Amino acid sequence: MSYKAPRGTADVLPQDASKWQFIERKIKEVCNRYHFHEIRTPLFEHTEVFQRGVGDSTDIVQKEMYTFEDRGGRSITLRPEGTASVVRSFVENKLFGSANQPVKLYYFAQMFRYERPQKGRMRQLHQFGVEVLGSADPAIDAEVIDLAMSCYREMGLKSLKLVINSLGDKESRTAHRQALIDHFTPHKEELCGDCQLRLEKNPLRVLDCKKDREHPSMKTAPSILEYLNDESTDYFNQVKEYLTLMGIEFEVDKNMVRGLDYYNHTTFEIMSEAEGFGAITTLAGGGRYHGLVEELGGPATPGIGFGMGLERLLMALEVEEKEIPVDDTLDCYLVAVGEKPEKEAVRIMHNLRKQGIQVDKDYQGKKMKGQFKAADRYQAKYVLILGEDELQQQHIAVREMRTGNQENVPLAELEDVIKEKL
Amino acid sequence: MSYKAPRGTADVLPQDASKWQFIERKIKEVCNRYHFHEIRTPLFEHTEVFQRGVGDSTDIVQKEMYTFEDRGGRSITLRPEGTASVVRSFVENKLFGSANQPVKLYYFAQMFRYERPQKGRMRQLHQFGVEVLGSADPAIDAEVIDLAMSCYREMGLKSLKLVINSLGDKESRTAHRQALIDHFTPHKEELCGDCQLRLEKNPLRVLDCKKDREHPSMKTAPSILEYLNDESTDYFNQVKEYLTLMGIEFEVDKNMVRGLDYYNHTTFEIMSEAEGFGAITTLAGGGRYHGLVEELGGPATPGIGFGMGLERLLMALEVEEKEIPVDDTLDCYLVAVGEKPEKEAVRIMHNLRKQGIQVDKDYQGKKMKGQFKAADRYQAKYVLILGEDELQQQHIAVREMRTGNQENVPLAELEDVIKEKL
Repeated sequence: MSYKAPRGTADVLPQDASKWQFIERKIKEVCNRYHFHEIRTPLFEHTEVFQRGVGDSTDIVQKEMYTFEDRGGRSITLRPEGTASVVRSFVENKLFGSANQPVKLYYFAQMFRYERPQKGRMRQLHQFGVEVLGSADPAIDAEVIDLAMSCYREMGLKSLKLVINSLGDKESRTAHRQALIDHFTPHKEELCGDCQLRLEKNPLRVLDCKKDREHPSMKTAPSILEYLNDESTDYFNQVKEYLTLMGIEFEVDKNMVRGLDYYNHTTFEIMSEAEGFGAITTLAGGGRYHGLVEELGGPATPGIGFGMGLERLLMALEVEEKEIPVDDTLDCYLVAVGEKPEKEAVRIMHNLRKQGIQVDKDYQGKKMKGQFKAADRYQAKYVLILGEDELQQQHIAVREMRTGNQENVPLAELEDVIKEKL
Repeated sequence: MSYKAPRGTADVLPQDASKWQFIERKIKEVCNRYHFHEIRTPLFEHTEVFQRGVGDSTDIVQKEMYTFEDRGGRSITLRPEGTASVVRSFVENKLFGSANQPVKLYYFAQMFRYERPQKGRMRQLHQFGVEVLGSADPAIDAEVIDLAMSCYREMGLKSLKLVINSLGDKESRTAHRQALIDHFTPHKEELCGDCQLRLEKNPLRVLDCKKDREHPSMKTAPSILEYLNDESTDYFNQVKEYLTLMGIEFEVDKNMVRGLDYYNHTTFEIMSEAEGFGAITTLAGGGRYHGLVEELGGPATPGIGFGMGLERLLMALEVEEKEIPVDDTLDCYLVAVGEKPEKEAVRIMHNLRKQGIQVDKDYQGKKMKGQFKAADRYQAKYVLILGEDELQQQHIAVREMRTGNQENVPLAELEDVIKEKL
């Protein structure tokens, strides 16, 4: 009987793991420059955390969650996105009480969504994300966007499009909501069943509908930007001004909305414009939210964050043909011939490794020729050759593979000699 | 309404995340020296992978798994341990066909076990582990043990005990099995119900029973070591010889068994002997196995591996009072006073960060004094001070916090000056 990884999940094999390691290391470096700190939350939460934190009426909560009962009868859900868990942790651990405000957090996390798998959409997916809690300064919105763009820029991506919009504050959204109702109600019967419901519950989400995308009323729908009050307009202008100051290009898409009540002011997406990227071009998306910390039991606290898909980042690197610098060489390969040298090899390798030197040998009883072939396949920089003669004289031959130069080194000096060479 | 992380799970907050980052980085370094490569498998597998790969009769599979049906009606289980997933991946991805044998893999993974949470035992736990597939050389057994010990040694742990045993090959185990049946059968009625079943199914596991631990028949039970055939004895002797060659101290515990049919030859555990460590002293455990790759659909392939608990590693570091070097300083903190300087600060920070320099500022509208306090709390090495006057002259004041020395630097030279200083 043979088994496969569950549909919509994938193994990361060694040749790809080093790519993941590279992007994670780079992103952590960037986060460090921006003075963000890592947080790690459990893989699952009580289901209610996502019902409240993501929203009961969203597709994620209604259709896509991995929800199950644990052996104690509690309803548990594998994390479908990052913000709700981070905010739950922020509240539970009272981070709002820290002297260092705002709290600037980042995370790397597996996410789980039961969707139809396709290119760029997995059931287990991987995101990097940030959340800043405790500041309503538009400069933080700009900083968060800057951080996301920096991650891509650091890896050499060029074909990116940053799109921003404002959802305004509550007053602006209420006015816009009414305008949407007034606009769509005459066409209600022509819209899909979901949209008829949305029109009552959350008319903003009508704009997001994939079925009604082509309905003529969509094009003429009132934009939130026409309904921003002065304060919201000023906030949005400041964000735009900061982005311009930093030389970050952007487009305003007045139809880019987010359906949750929590979202306010800035919302943004970063897309790939690279040719051949495929249908799903969004690389990262985020925005400002308010009320979520309260919803999960904390004091009123403004927040902003984004989530960045790492599978899609790797896709973008591939499409833009950005090489990920992966070192797949080996410092030393030890060729041992004869019973005693094979024993001694174990001691030698132990001591080299203790000194931080990378070394491997054969473990399959290969003859000398086979061992040299393995050294080649592993791209060994140095081959260390130990036969009965060398062992007798307490020497070992060190061959530099690039030049073919070979010298005898006393065993007692081997570690120092190799360290010197590397 | 407020929410807590599910029982038996924990958040890793920023001050602890840097400790996790440190041990992960150290362990990856060690793996690299030993020429092991990372593999990542999905969080969950088809339940059968663990039923077959861990064993239907084990406590893990019977009582502790997080098993649920996904929305497609498939039985899915959150990974309770690492080996079965890695072997499933090895088979599915045909790694047995690679020219580079043995395949030396390592992983970092969350594991999930529904047990009563206590100190050192979480429901979501974190392990580092390795698996070597494709070599039956006793030198690999020694290498794997050496790697585990190196991880601890690199972090400065001293109070460690390595215990090894051999379970022999199939012939030896069959002889031992019969001896166990002969030994325990006269006492069958005095043993617990589980053990009465085990005596028929898997008498080796009687030795592991917590309830019958004190029964007199336990002390006189026949040891596997008395039943090892010549080949198995020779194998075990070689492993011991290699460990001795490397200067690794060990004890042989002839009663240390593993209840699965797959296990053969070498088995080992590493325990903490530090005072005050608590009841559960096992830090890592592993051993050699055979038949698992076939069980999961691949060709006959010998394997050996171990799992190392990372929560317990952190506990051991704490108990042995080993400081984890965590850098919680900040390179630069920018103090901006006045409307224009605050705007300009955003541009300056963007450029500094682009050059790899870590910098932060206030985002809460604090006055100058409050900003300096924040710089102190963040342990800023340099404070950059920008007021209207400085901006007018296109200068910025750079104060070294350690010495209090302050100088004016032209804005155009700031990045170079700071890079020079750091």
